[in-house]
Amino acid sequence: MSAPCHCAHANQDSAVSKPGSQSNVPEYSDPNHPANLICELCRLFYDNNWVTGTGGGISIRDVDGPDPNIVYIAPSGVQKERIRPWEMFVVSLPDEKLLQSPNDCPPELTKSYKYKPSACTPLFMSCYTMRDAGACIHTHSQSAVMVTLLSQATFEISHIEQIKALPKLEVNEEGKVVKVGSMQYYDTLVIPIIDNTPHEEDLTDSLQEAIRNYPGTSAVLVRRHGIYVWGETVWKAKVYNEAIDYLLELAVKMHAAGIPWVKK
Amino acid sequence: MSAPCHCAHANQDSAVSKPGSQSNVPEYSDPNHPANLICELCRLFYDNNWVTGTGGGISIRDVDGPDPNIVYIAPSGVQKERIRPWEMFVVSLPDEKLLQSPNDCPPELTKSYKYKPSACTPLFMSCYTMRDAGACIHTHSQSAVMVTLLSQATFEISHIEQIKALPKLEVNEEGKVVKVGSMQYYDTLVIPIIDNTPHEEDLTDSLQEAIRNYPGTSAVLVRRHGIYVWGETVWKAKVYNEAIDYLLELAVKMHAAGIPWVKK
Amino acid sequence: MSAPCHCAHANQDSAVSKPGSQSNVPEYSDPNHPANLICELCRLFYDNNWVTGTGGGISIRDVDGPDPNIVYIAPSGVQKERIRPWEMFVVSLPDEKLLQSPNDCPPELTKSYKYKPSACTPLFMSCYTMRDAGACIHTHSQSAVMVTLLSQATFEISHIEQIKALPKLEVNEEGKVVKVGSMQYYDTLVIPIIDNTPHEEDLTDSLQEAIRNYPGTSAVLVRRHGIYVWGETVWKAKVYNEAIDYLLELAVKMHAAGIPWVKK
Amino acid sequence: MSAPCHCAHANQDSAVSKPGSQSNVPEYSDPNHPANLICELCRLFYDNNWVTGTGGGISIRDVDGPDPNIVYIAPSGVQKERIRPWEMFVVSLPDEKLLQSPNDCPPELTKSYKYKPSACTPLFMSCYTMRDAGACIHTHSQSAVMVTLLSQATFEISHIEQIKALPKLEVNEEGKVVKVGSMQYYDTLVIPIIDNTPHEEDLTDSLQEAIRNYPGTSAVLVRRHGIYVWGETVWKAKVYNEAIDYLLELAVKMHAAGIPWVKK
Repeated sequence: MSAPCHCAHANQDSAVSKPGSQSNVPEYSDPNHPANLICELCRLFYDNNWVTGTGGGISIRDVDGPDPNIVYIAPSGVQKERIRPWEMFVVSLPDEKLLQSPNDCPPELTKSYKYKPSACTPLFMSCYTMRDAGACIHTHSQSAVMVTLLSQATFEISHIEQIKALPKLEVNEEGKVVKVGSMQYYDTLVIPIIDNTPHEEDLTDSLQEAIRNYPGTSAVLVRRHGIYVWGETVWKAKVYNEAIDYLLELAVKMHAAGIPWVKK
Repeated sequence: MSAPCHCAHANQDSAVSKPGSQSNVPEYSDPNHPANLICELCRLFYDNNWVTGTGGGISIRDVDGPDPNIVYIAPSGVQKERIRPWEMFVVSLPDEKLLQSPNDCPPELTKSYKYKPSACTPLFMSCYTMRDAGACIHTHSQSAVMVTLLSQATFEISHIEQIKALPKLEVNEEGKVVKVGSMQYYDTLVIPIIDNTPHEEDLTDSLQEAIRNYPGTSAVLVRRHGIYVWGETVWKAKVYNEAIDYLLELAVKMHAAGIPWVKK
Repeated sequence: MSAPCHCAHANQDSAVSKPGSQSNVPEYSDPNHPANLICELCRLFYDNNWVTGTGGGISIRDVDGPDPNIVYIAPSGVQKERIRPWEMFVVSLPDEKLLQSPNDCPPELTKSYKYKPSACTPLFMSCYTMRDAGACIHTHSQSAVMVTLLSQATFEISHIEQIKALPKLEVNEEGKVVKVGSMQYYDTLVIPIIDNTPHEEDLTDSLQEAIRNYPGTSAVLVRRHGIYVWGETVWKAKVYNEAIDYLLELAVKMHAAGIPWVKK
Repeated sequence: MSAPCHCAHANQDSAVSKPGSQSNVPEYSDPNHPANLICELCRLFYDNNWVTGTGGGISIRDVDGPDPNIVYIAPSGVQKERIRPWEMFVVSLPDEKLLQSPNDCPPELTKSYKYKPSACTPLFMSCYTMRDAGACIHTHSQSAVMVTLLSQATFEISHIEQIKALPKLEVNEEGKVVKVGSMQYYDTLVIPIIDNTPHEEDLTDSLQEAIRNYPGTSAVLVRRHGIYVWGETVWKAKVYNEAIDYLLELAVKMHAAGIPWVKK
C-alpha cells in the first residue's frame, strides 16, 4: 500500500474542529477517520489529566476501514492535546512496515517537534497481535499509579456495578481469547501489574507475559507509571479505559476509608 | 399513537449542537424536546463523572407535551455523552408499549451499536407509576457508591443548607405522595439504600419497596452501584440530583474529617 | 426611574452567547451589562460547584452605569447556570423599590419558573448599605461548608501568598470602612462565621453584626451553608471570592495533613 | 526597537477567539504570537486553578521571532483568564528597557485596571539571564503549596514515569547549564524550595541562589506561595510545568497514603 503524505494539504487547525478546511484530503474530512479520532480522544484524555505533559498515548487499528492491518499511532513526547491528524505514524501489520511518518511532512507544519517513533509502539503491537485489538490506550492516570503503589502483583476489585462495563473474556478451543459477554457484578476484576523499566520499550516482554498469564484481562497496569487498556474497537477501548479508571479512582477512595476492594 | 421513525431525516450531528440540521423533523429542532434534553443532560452528566463508561442513564416523560404518557429512555450500554435524539427508546404508559426503537433506524445511522432495551427501564417505570414522576436520573456517582459503603440501611444528613433544594413530600388523603413545599434546613434527609443485584432489572422489587416505605424520599441509593433520583419534571429531577450529589460528596468529606452527618 | 420590561424583545438564548439576537434591547447587547454579567458568572460558578442545584446567587450594583443606585439580583430557587438577563429582579437603593420583576415578563418566556424575591436580598442589601459594595456573591462552596465545620467563631489563616489578593480595609475618620491597600503575606486573614438559620432572610441581623464587628473582612461565612463575599466592583468581588475559596480549599487540605492554618 | 501601541486597533475580544477581528495588527492575528499565547495559556492555567484570583503569571521571550531579546510579561494583579494581547508589558534584554506598557493604551480599552509592573518581573528575568530560558511560568498551584508545607529545603521524588518528561541538565565546560537529554525513570527529581518573602520582588536573591545551587533544576518552589518553572521555549515550559504539577499532585496523594516520595 502506498503512503501519500497529506501534510501539504492540511492547515494549522484540527480537521475535526474546523470542518471543510481540509477538503483536499478526503479521509481527514471524516471525523471518524482514525487520525482524527486520535486527536479528539487525546484532547479528552488531556482534560482528564491522563496525558498531561506529553504523557500517555493512543493507537488505533483501522478495523472498519479498507485495510484493517493499518495502524495509526500518536507520536511520542509531544503535547497530546495539540496533535493534528497528519502527525501520526502509520504502519501496517504484521511486519510493522512504516507507511507514513510525520517527519516526511513539510517542515513548516511540523517544525516545532522532532518526531520520534513512539516508545509505546511495541506495546501497542503486542495488543494487536496477541489480542486482535482494534485500539490501545496508554495513560499516566494518577489513580492507576496510586493503585500500583497500594498493590502487589495484581489489582483486584469486586461487587461494584461499573465492573459490568468490562468484557468477559475466555480462551476458546483454538486457544484464542474471545469475548463471551460482559463481566458480572459479583465477578472479581483482576488486572495484572508489571514493574516499570527505565526504557518503555523494555516493558514489552513483561507486558506480553502478563497478557498471556491473564487471558481474562483487557488491561495491564505498570507500577509507578500508568496503564495500558485495549478493546476490539476504539470506542470499546475508550469505554473499558473509562470504566477501569472509574474503578481505580474509587479504589483509592475506598482504601483511604479502610474499605477492602474485594468483598468476601 | 403511531411511532414514525425519524432516523432517516437525521444527520450525524446532534440536533442541539447544529441547529437547523434536522428541519424535516420538527420536534428534534426544539432543544427542549425530551430526546434532545436527554442528549444534553447526558453530556453534562458525563462531564461530572456520573455516566462514564456507559454507566447510568436518564428517562423523561413528556409531561409538557401533547401526550404526557409518552416516555423517552436513553439506550443501555452505550456512551451516554454521544447519544443522539433518534437513539431513544420511546414507550407509552401505562402498558409500556414500545412506540419507537433505535433498532428501527436505518443501519447507516446506528451500525456502531446493537441497541438493547435499557435494563433500567422497569426502575424508571416504577418512578413514573408510583410517584407520577416527570423524569428519572440514574448515575454511578462515586460519592453515591462511597456513601453506600459507609452506611447501613439509609443515608441520613441534616443541618446543611443545600437540603432546602429538595422537596418536602407527604402522603395525602388519597394515599398519594404529594409535594407540600421544600425541606427545611434542620430537617433530616433520609434516602433508603437497597442492595445491588446481579441483574439491574432485579432491583425493581426492592426499589419499589423502598419507594413505598420511604414516602418522603425523591431518591433511592443502590449499594456499590449508584443512585436513582426522580422529580416532577426533568429540570426538577436535575436539580434534586445535583443537590443530593452535593450532599453525598460533602458527606464523604465530612466522614474523612470525623464529622457526623446528622447534627444532634 | 421607569422600569421597562424588555422580555418581549428577548429570545430564548442568552444575549451573550448569541450576539445580535437582542438588538431591540440595547443594554442587553452589552456583555458588560450587569444582567449579562450575572448570567456569565453564574455559569462560571456552576462549573466550580458553587451554585449547583439552585444554590447560591449573585447581585450587582450598577456602579459604572448611569445610576449607581440600581441593583440587579439573580432570582432565587432557579438553576443559576441557565438564567437569562431578563430574569433579574431590579431594585433601587436606598429604599429597595422594585423596578423590574421577571414575573412581569411575558409568560411564554418564563413559564418554567415561578419567580420569588430572592431570600438573599436583605443580605445583599446589607453589603451595599454597610460597605458601599458594588457586587455581592453568595456560594454554597463545599470548602466553605467544611471550614465552618472545622472552626468556631472565625476562620483564620496566615502566611499564604494568595492572601495578598484580598483588600486591606480600615475604618477612616468618618467611621467608614475604606480600602487602604492589599493584605500582606504575613497578615492573618480573619473571616467571621455566623450560624445558619432556618430561613435565609433571618441571617440578616447576624450578618450585619459580623460586618460591624469585623471591619477588616470582605466576607462572612455561614456555618453549614456557604459564604457571602463582596467587593467594590463585580470584578473585585469575583477576585476576592476566588482568592478566599482558594484559601478555604487549601485550608481543608492543610487540616487533613495536620498543618495549622495560622503560622506562629 | 520602536514600541508601537496597537491598542487603538484592537477590539474587546481576544484576537485568538475571534479571528479576523484585529486585521490591522498583523502580529496579533498570529495565534502563536507571544502576546496571544500568554492569553491562551492563562485561560488554560485558570481552568487548572493555577492562577485564580489574579494569582500567578507567565512571561515569554520571543525566541522564534525577529528579536529573541524581546520579552512579553503578563500584567500583575489582574484576572489572568481575561487578559488581552495588548495588555502585556514588553521589555528588551539585557537592560530590561520598557518597550511597551498597557498604560499607554487608549483609556477606553483599559479603564478597568491600573496596570502595575509585574512583581514577578525580576524573577522572570533571572530565568532568562541565568538559564537562557524561552519562557517562565509562575503558578499558585495548591499541590505546590502543599508540598512546600510537607518538605524542608527541597522536594524530591523518584521512580515515577512522568519524571521522564523533564530535562536532564548539566553544566558544560563553559559553566553554562545545558540540556543533555531527558531525566530517567530512576532519577531523583530535586526541586529547591525557597522561603516566601512579604514582597515578591524580594524573592529574587534567594531564587537566583537556588538556580545557582541546583544547576539540574528547571523549577523553584516558593514555600506557602507556589512555583516558578521555565523552559527553552514556551511549549517546553508548559510541558515541564504540567509534568511537575502532576508529580506534586501525586506526591500529596502519596503522602496521605503513607508512601515515601523517594524509592530506596
